[in-house]
Amino acid sequence: MEKVNLQGVRLFAPASIANISCGFDVLGLCLENIGDYMEIRRSEKAGIHITSIKGQDLPLEAKKNVAGVAGLALLEAHNPQLGFEISIEKNIKPGSGIGSSAASAAGTVAGINYLLGSPYTNKQLIPFAMEGERLACGTAHADNVAPTLMGGFTLVRDTNPLDVCALPTPLELTATVIHPKIEVKTADARAVLKKRVTLQTAIQQWANVGALVSSLYEEDYELLSRSLVDEIVEPIRSILIPHFSKLKKACSDAGALGSGISGSGPSVFALSKGMTTANKVANAMHEVYAKTDIPYDIYVSPVKSTGVSFLEDLS
Amino acid sequence: MEKVNLQGVRLFAPASIANISCGFDVLGLCLENIGDYMEIRRSEKAGIHITSIKGQDLPLEAKKNVAGVAGLALLEAHNPQLGFEISIEKNIKPGSGIGSSAASAAGTVAGINYLLGSPYTNKQLIPFAMEGERLACGTAHADNVAPTLMGGFTLVRDTNPLDVCALPTPLELTATVIHPKIEVKTADARAVLKKRVTLQTAIQQWANVGALVSSLYEEDYELLSRSLVDEIVEPIRSILIPHFSKLKKACSDAGALGSGISGSGPSVFALSKGMTTANKVANAMHEVYAKTDIPYDIYVSPVKSTGVSFLEDLS
Repeated sequence: MEKVNLQGVRLFAPASIANISCGFDVLGLCLENIGDYMEIRRSEKAGIHITSIKGQDLPLEAKKNVAGVAGLALLEAHNPQLGFEISIEKNIKPGSGIGSSAASAAGTVAGINYLLGSPYTNKQLIPFAMEGERLACGTAHADNVAPTLMGGFTLVRDTNPLDVCALPTPLELTATVIHPKIEVKTADARAVLKKRVTLQTAIQQWANVGALVSSLYEEDYELLSRSLVDEIVEPIRSILIPHFSKLKKACSDAGALGSGISGSGPSVFALSKGMTTANKVANAMHEVYAKTDIPYDIYVSPVKSTGVSFLEDLS
Repeated sequence: MEKVNLQGVRLFAPASIANISCGFDVLGLCLENIGDYMEIRRSEKAGIHITSIKGQDLPLEAKKNVAGVAGLALLEAHNPQLGFEISIEKNIKPGSGIGSSAASAAGTVAGINYLLGSPYTNKQLIPFAMEGERLACGTAHADNVAPTLMGGFTLVRDTNPLDVCALPTPLELTATVIHPKIEVKTADARAVLKKRVTLQTAIQQWANVGALVSSLYEEDYELLSRSLVDEIVEPIRSILIPHFSKLKKACSDAGALGSGISGSGPSVFALSKGMTTANKVANAMHEVYAKTDIPYDIYVSPVKSTGVSFLEDLS
């Protein structure tokens, strides 16, 4: 049922980690403690109207903004006569590699869907949010919008037609993320990839993907740790991230189950069993980067079991 | 505890399917209705002594026989003073692609382990059985011995060190296997493979492996069906199997969830939901091959949830 008396909603649009080690282009997860706040309100004027963006200098024009484009894609499918105003408090830095554009796109479509009385499931909202990703990085990928909308771990089996699986999350799994404030352009991160890989390495990679999925169902942290390996993309892309191998060793020494590049970087994530270890990993990351002149942020976060959270109905 | 009063055991060593579609070199399953019968007895004479092999012309000399080599590997690790006699009723044809050598190797080590009072787990027996595979095909792979010893679906994450996961099996999952009686040498099947694959295809493959593993946990037959795809090996190896594409279409038309090459061929397997559909698939395979002059066998079998079965204690 459409919430006709409800004028708006305040929501939390979480950050996410895509390209989880062996699950390059396929596996992602949703973060609990990092994300944007958004307010979506009904408007008399048809279309999407971005009224304010705090924290970042991003275009307000709907067609040039990922939130706008995602919202317009939803309206086009549902009812182009409807109108919504969006204001965004942007905490996730664009280009950080933890799903900044996905949060804006997913938050918008989830918020509008909420006000419409949820005619779409979270999974059905993914294609609309993917249109925002198309604007942001040229391809309508679901790597970040899938976990941002569905929560937990997600596996994108295919994008055409879209086929996304929700995977279980072991309860104590906790992420630590360092965002070195340097620019790694997605285009560059794509350009360095090799178009071909050896069959032998590919087999290792899909063995690890299968084992990683099994480890999530079994809550087998040791198997998860052994599977969190990327023999294909990480060795190449990590050259774009300063001190990557030092970071990786520091995470491992501090007890992390594994670590890798978040999205197309420059953020680096580690997964640990429990908050205590995740905090130790944060300290270890800190020690590596404090010695450099590169500014950075570090986040520690459980995996968020649900996607976008609705915080407050607005009258 | 060692069964000191027990002189021998009669057992069933099941056939298996390796290289399950996208899970090339990684995913295997154990079959219920096809396998060898073996009798393993204590002997006063140290070593492995193969006393008879019915149904096939295979070497009796232990060091030239996969059962012998696997048994000797176990004795060497455990106690080289011990001796066992082995007789085999061979129902699985060597070279059929459904784990003939694995059955002999796994049956031997499982039988000896049983008589010794099970000092090893089924998983711990895998490396001994792999020595039999090394004799049979030149590499000590675990693709078939893992499901033959552990039952159900298995995923071999790594062989060095060995890391095998037991995966759940949806209850109604049923296999249909056609064995065209032609020779496909494993060496040829390996030679045709390309050493490199495109990254794009590899990503598709590991997305399917991840989804397939998830489908087994979720008992999601539709997802299993969508994931049973091999874009890398099947298109190449299938040229070695007469009428492969006709078989594949017939299986699909008859309602199979998916189909592929069993091991390195020439057997072709299909997986279906339920015995009724699996029997329809058998008929469909029959119709394709009855028109040819190639002799063939067809088997229909549930997935066997346990590996080697012990049928009778022998005094």
